[in-house]
Amino acid sequence: MSDQNSQQPSHTPISSLGEFGLIDLLTKHARHRHPETVKGVGDDAAVLKNDQELTVVSTDLLVEGIHFDLMYTPLKHLGYKSIVVNLSDICAMNATPKQVTVSIALSNRFSVEALTELYEGIHQACINYDVDLIGGDTSSSKSGLVISVTAIGKVETDKVVYRNKAQVDDHIFVTGDLGAAYLGLQILEREKRIYLENPHIQPQLADHQYLVGRQLRPEARQDVIEILAQQDIVPNAMIDISDGLSSDVLHICKQSNVGCCIFEENVPIHPESYNMALEFKLNPITCALSGGEDYELLFTLPADQAKKLQDTAGFFDIGKITPLDKGNLLYGKSGRADQLIAQGWKHL
Amino acid sequence: MSDQNSQQPSHTPISSLGEFGLIDLLTKHARHRHPETVKGVGDDAAVLKNDQELTVVSTDLLVEGIHFDLMYTPLKHLGYKSIVVNLSDICAMNATPKQVTVSIALSNRFSVEALTELYEGIHQACINYDVDLIGGDTSSSKSGLVISVTAIGKVETDKVVYRNKAQVDDHIFVTGDLGAAYLGLQILEREKRIYLENPHIQPQLADHQYLVGRQLRPEARQDVIEILAQQDIVPNAMIDISDGLSSDVLHICKQSNVGCCIFEENVPIHPESYNMALEFKLNPITCALSGGEDYELLFTLPADQAKKLQDTAGFFDIGKITPLDKGNLLYGKSGRADQLIAQGWKHL
Repeated sequence: MSDQNSQQPSHTPISSLGEFGLIDLLTKHARHRHPETVKGVGDDAAVLKNDQELTVVSTDLLVEGIHFDLMYTPLKHLGYKSIVVNLSDICAMNATPKQVTVSIALSNRFSVEALTELYEGIHQACINYDVDLIGGDTSSSKSGLVISVTAIGKVETDKVVYRNKAQVDDHIFVTGDLGAAYLGLQILEREKRIYLENPHIQPQLADHQYLVGRQLRPEARQDVIEILAQQDIVPNAMIDISDGLSSDVLHICKQSNVGCCIFEENVPIHPESYNMALEFKLNPITCALSGGEDYELLFTLPADQAKKLQDTAGFFDIGKITPLDKGNLLYGKSGRADQLIAQGWKHL
Repeated sequence: MSDQNSQQPSHTPISSLGEFGLIDLLTKHARHRHPETVKGVGDDAAVLKNDQELTVVSTDLLVEGIHFDLMYTPLKHLGYKSIVVNLSDICAMNATPKQVTVSIALSNRFSVEALTELYEGIHQACINYDVDLIGGDTSSSKSGLVISVTAIGKVETDKVVYRNKAQVDDHIFVTGDLGAAYLGLQILEREKRIYLENPHIQPQLADHQYLVGRQLRPEARQDVIEILAQQDIVPNAMIDISDGLSSDVLHICKQSNVGCCIFEENVPIHPESYNMALEFKLNPITCALSGGEDYELLFTLPADQAKKLQDTAGFFDIGKITPLDKGNLLYGKSGRADQLIAQGWKHL
């Protein structure tokens, strides 16, 4: 298709669409994939049909300047990530995501094209994870972009996994390498600083696609939920690693009234993460423990169940649940034990 | 209890609480009232038990400076209203609200006391409407306050009411007087202007409690849903009046592929609204048609069902559904017919 104006990016004011035009634009690609989605966008509320399973509901609010920086975040990736971080919470309940609602507030500096790009990412995530976009709300904001997503999932009543049922002697598993998303963010922040000092210098991102990709376009580990189901494994406790390994394993310990020990040498760190940490003069294990936003799953299993995963690629046995009075310990490669400490809450 | 510092309002920085302190503060009053609420705040997602009914889901995003002005909106009322506007959408499906999630983003100019006041209103709404607060997200924002609420409700499969099933010859009902919330807003805006010009002048709100109350502290008409159920009435179509009577009845007409005629003399307008409209040199019927935010319900019923409501106080038969080719008409008191026109979308 030829487009005479293809060299000039177009800028259509959102106000030119009107409410219905806007809703139509944003939802015309929203196909319903689940028979239980009786009604999606277009009424006062979406309508879902029930069955005998449990429904799980998760919600997240993403705020410009706090959770994302549009200077280096492509809108399509932002849309994708805003869905994924919610689906990750649904997976962390051992549930399958089924529906999402998406509400956005945005200032008039955003064009229809920008909004369309954001929703391309949203629709792509819905396709990839087989979820229905069933509703939302769109309004203006006086300053930045705000995205609020609520995800709804299903799980059989006896398969739901909470944070508060970890048992002493459980093995602690994570599902992938940690720290990469944090290091990707450091690269993006560095290139932003360089760009702001000298706008003629092009950002050097091509060499760091893995790390930058882990930050900008994370995935929810729905595949892990499927593997666990295939192997008849129901973890005792599970959480997704959004705040960082330390912080998130401590959530489980606190709610389960247990302690833990983590073995540093078992914590998976990607070689690129390792090298980039050193380049930033950071300790690689600190990045893995406190980085956050990796959206891997962390779960605990009794020894007999843990055995089933010993030969399965992509599952890393990083430690054990201990009695509460043993505390929360990190064993270094030398065998020395340190207290495992959660970093502060970064978004407030 | 004596408090030596009671004359000085306290200001505790939110950062002093930490994440868990904050979540605990905001959710410690969240009691679950429904057995289907299996798990609320405290895990990756809330967990709801299903049954054989339909689940309905509605979501709204409220942005400071767009949807509310903190100069004249008490935080407790804002919290209350943020829940109510979502429950109103659930009622408009003929469903009963059961659960809500609440996410907020706020800048550091807000204190713990301010946040507590906001949540007092949220909890009060949950108590009044018998809904469970089951989750949410709290983060900071670079500028104003953002509140995102998702409400979940239940309805028997054959009782759900959409916007697209209005039938020709249906009577159109509204459940209360219209335009008051808009006029309440005009009063608040006027007093704000006067205050900004001369901060020594006290706002004159005491004489206008009804109108200001309709704006600041609306209610969702869950009582109407109960009355309809008691009388075995299931409307053909229903919507809540959030944008204004004209705009909202046109939603129903467009989705149902029908026309309508509204009789001006049947549209309920409170005497205080009538007088205040004249004081603002506004046409009272224009305020009722286009004001919005009244959160009354508008529904359509066939004649035999409509009869059941003829002697019921608080239900107003304001017009009829007509064939599509008759258009959307407003009959004035003189008998003259004008086109019924929706006002523009005010929030974008």
